[in-house]
Amino acid sequence: MARVSGKQDVEQDLARLGLSIRAQRKALGMTQEALADAAGVDRAHMGKIERGERNVTLLNLARIAGALQLRPSEMLAAAGL
Amino acid sequence: MARVSGKQDVEQDLARLGLSIRAQRKALGMTQEALADAAGVDRAHMGKIERGERNVTLLNLARIAGALQLRPSEMLAAAGL
Repeated sequence: MARVSGKQDVEQDLARLGLSIRAQRKALGMTQEALADAAGVDRAHMGKIERGERNVTLLNLARIAGALQLRPSEMLAAAGL
Repeated sequence: MARVSGKQDVEQDLARLGLSIRAQRKALGMTQEALADAAGVDRAHMGKIERGERNVTLLNLARIAGALQLRPSEMLAAAGL
Protein backbone atom coordinates (compact mmCIF):
# COMPACT_ATOMS: atom_id res chain seq x y z
CA MET A 1 0.00 0.00 0.00
CA ALA A 2 1.33 3.44 -0.91
CA ARG A 3 2.29 5.74 1.91
CA VAL A 4 -0.31 8.40 2.70
CA SER A 5 1.08 11.84 3.48
CA GLY A 6 0.74 12.73 7.14
CA LYS A 7 -0.15 16.14 8.55
CA GLN A 8 3.50 17.03 9.11
CA ASP A 9 4.47 16.14 5.51
CA VAL A 10 1.71 18.37 4.21
CA GLU A 11 2.69 21.29 6.41
CA GLN A 12 6.22 20.89 5.08
CA ASP A 13 4.93 20.76 1.50
CA LEU A 14 2.95 23.97 2.01
CA ALA A 15 5.95 25.68 3.61
CA ARG A 16 8.18 24.66 0.71
CA LEU A 17 5.68 25.87 -1.84
CA GLY A 18 5.34 29.20 -0.05
CA LEU A 19 9.10 29.73 0.03
CA SER A 20 9.34 28.83 -3.64
CA ILE A 21 6.56 31.25 -4.58
CA ARG A 22 8.28 34.00 -2.60
CA ALA A 23 11.66 33.29 -4.25
CA GLN A 24 10.14 33.29 -7.73
CA ARG A 25 8.20 36.49 -7.01
CA LYS A 26 11.35 38.26 -5.80
CA ALA A 27 13.30 37.00 -8.82
CA LEU A 28 10.71 38.81 -10.93
CA GLY A 29 11.00 41.93 -8.77
CA MET A 30 7.33 41.79 -7.74
CA THR A 31 5.90 42.84 -4.40
CA GLN A 32 3.58 40.43 -2.63
CA GLU A 33 0.71 42.85 -3.28
CA ALA A 34 1.49 43.00 -7.00
CA LEU A 35 1.55 39.20 -7.19
CA ALA A 36 -1.75 38.92 -5.32
CA ASP A 37 -3.36 41.44 -7.66
CA ALA A 38 -1.90 39.83 -10.80
CA ALA A 39 -3.11 36.40 -9.66
CA GLY A 40 -6.51 37.66 -8.54
CA VAL A 41 -5.90 36.29 -5.05
CA ASP A 42 -6.86 38.22 -1.91
CA ARG A 43 -3.75 39.98 -0.53
CA ALA A 44 -4.10 38.60 3.00
CA HIS A 45 -4.62 35.11 1.58
CA MET A 46 -1.49 35.50 -0.60
CA GLY A 47 0.56 36.30 2.51
CA LYS A 48 -0.73 33.16 4.22
CA ILE A 49 0.07 31.05 1.16
CA GLU A 50 3.65 32.41 1.08
CA ARG A 51 4.01 31.57 4.78
CA GLY A 52 2.71 28.05 4.17
CA GLU A 53 -0.32 28.68 6.36
CA ARG A 54 -2.97 27.81 3.78
CA ASN A 55 -3.82 24.60 1.95
CA VAL A 56 -3.76 26.16 -1.51
CA THR A 57 -6.24 24.94 -4.13
CA LEU A 58 -5.45 24.04 -7.73
CA LEU A 59 -7.44 27.13 -8.75
CA ASN A 60 -5.15 29.47 -6.82
CA LEU A 61 -2.05 27.44 -7.66
CA ALA A 62 -2.81 27.91 -11.38
CA ARG A 63 -3.50 31.62 -10.93
CA ILE A 64 -0.30 32.23 -8.95
CA ALA A 65 1.77 30.14 -11.36
CA GLY A 66 0.37 32.12 -14.29
CA ALA A 67 1.25 35.42 -12.63
CA LEU A 68 4.79 34.07 -12.07
CA GLN A 69 5.06 32.96 -15.69
CA LEU A 70 5.27 29.29 -14.71
CA ARG A 71 3.16 26.23 -15.39
CA PRO A 72 1.56 24.79 -12.21
CA SER A 73 3.69 21.63 -12.56
CA GLU A 74 6.84 23.78 -12.85
CA MET A 75 5.88 25.71 -9.73
CA LEU A 76 5.52 22.48 -7.74
CA ALA A 77 8.73 21.05 -9.19
CA ALA A 78 10.59 24.25 -8.22
CA ALA A 79 9.34 23.66 -4.66
CA GLY A 80 10.65 20.08 -4.75
CA LEU A 81 7.13 18.62 -4.79
CA MET B 1 0.60 42.08 -16.66
CA ALA B 2 0.39 38.29 -16.62
CA ARG B 3 -2.85 36.70 -17.69
CA VAL B 4 -5.06 35.55 -14.84
CA SER B 5 -6.80 32.22 -15.35
CA GLY B 6 -10.52 32.57 -15.89
CA LYS B 7 -13.25 30.30 -14.57
CA GLN B 8 -13.39 28.32 -17.81
CA ASP B 9 -9.61 27.71 -17.82
CA VAL B 10 -9.80 26.40 -14.28
CA GLU B 11 -12.70 24.10 -15.02
CA GLN B 12 -10.68 22.73 -17.93
CA ASP B 13 -7.62 22.31 -15.67
CA LEU B 14 -9.68 20.37 -13.13
CA ALA B 15 -11.20 18.19 -15.86
CA ARG B 16 -7.74 17.43 -17.29
CA LEU B 17 -6.37 16.57 -13.87
CA GLY B 18 -9.31 14.27 -13.17
CA LEU B 19 -8.87 12.42 -16.46
CA SER B 20 -5.15 12.07 -15.80
CA ILE B 21 -5.74 10.71 -12.27
CA ARG B 22 -8.23 8.20 -13.68
CA ALA B 23 -5.83 7.09 -16.44
CA GLN B 24 -2.95 6.67 -13.98
CA ARG B 25 -5.19 4.78 -11.53
CA LYS B 26 -6.35 2.38 -14.26
CA ALA B 27 -2.76 1.90 -15.45
CA LEU B 28 -2.02 0.65 -11.92
CA GLY B 29 -5.11 -1.58 -11.96
CA MET B 30 -6.69 0.21 -9.00
CA THR B 31 -10.39 0.78 -8.45
CA GLN B 32 -11.53 4.29 -7.57
CA GLU B 33 -12.40 3.05 -4.09
CA ALA B 34 -8.94 1.56 -3.60
CA LEU B 35 -7.32 4.84 -4.68
CA ALA B 36 -9.56 6.85 -2.35
CA ASP B 37 -8.70 4.56 0.56
CA ALA B 38 -4.96 4.55 -0.23
CA ALA B 39 -4.93 8.34 -0.48
CA GLY B 40 -7.09 8.82 2.61
CA VAL B 41 -9.63 10.80 0.59
CA ASP B 42 -13.37 10.36 1.03
CA ARG B 43 -14.69 8.03 -1.72
CA ALA B 44 -17.43 10.40 -2.90
CA HIS B 45 -14.93 13.26 -2.98
CA MET B 46 -12.51 11.11 -5.02
CA GLY B 47 -15.22 10.53 -7.62
CA LYS B 48 -15.85 14.27 -7.87
CA ILE B 49 -12.12 14.95 -8.25
CA GLU B 50 -11.87 12.39 -11.08
CA ARG B 51 -14.84 14.06 -12.79
CA GLY B 52 -13.21 17.48 -12.42
CA GLU B 53 -16.02 18.68 -10.18
CA ARG B 54 -13.87 19.71 -7.21
CA ASN B 55 -11.17 22.33 -6.79
CA VAL B 56 -8.61 19.94 -5.32
CA THR B 57 -6.25 21.21 -2.61
CA LEU B 58 -2.50 20.66 -2.46
CA LEU B 59 -3.10 18.40 0.54
CA ASN B 60 -5.30 16.05 -1.46
CA LEU B 61 -3.17 16.43 -4.60
CA ALA B 62 -0.13 15.23 -2.63
CA ARG B 63 -2.08 12.34 -1.08
CA ILE B 64 -3.48 11.18 -4.42
CA ALA B 65 -0.11 11.56 -6.16
CA GLY B 66 1.53 9.51 -3.40
CA ALA B 67 -1.04 6.73 -3.80
CA LEU B 68 -0.36 6.76 -7.56
CA GLN B 69 3.41 6.60 -7.00
CA LEU B 70 3.93 10.03 -8.53
CA ARG B 71 5.28 13.33 -7.28
CA PRO B 72 2.63 16.10 -7.22
CA SER B 73 4.55 17.99 -9.94
CA GLU B 74 4.61 14.84 -12.09
CA MET B 75 0.87 14.38 -11.64
CA LEU B 76 0.21 17.94 -12.86
CA ALA B 77 2.68 17.58 -15.72
CA ALA B 78 0.95 14.33 -16.80
CA ALA B 79 -2.29 16.34 -16.94
CA GLY B 80 -0.60 18.98 -19.11
CA LEU B 81 -0.72 21.55 -16.32
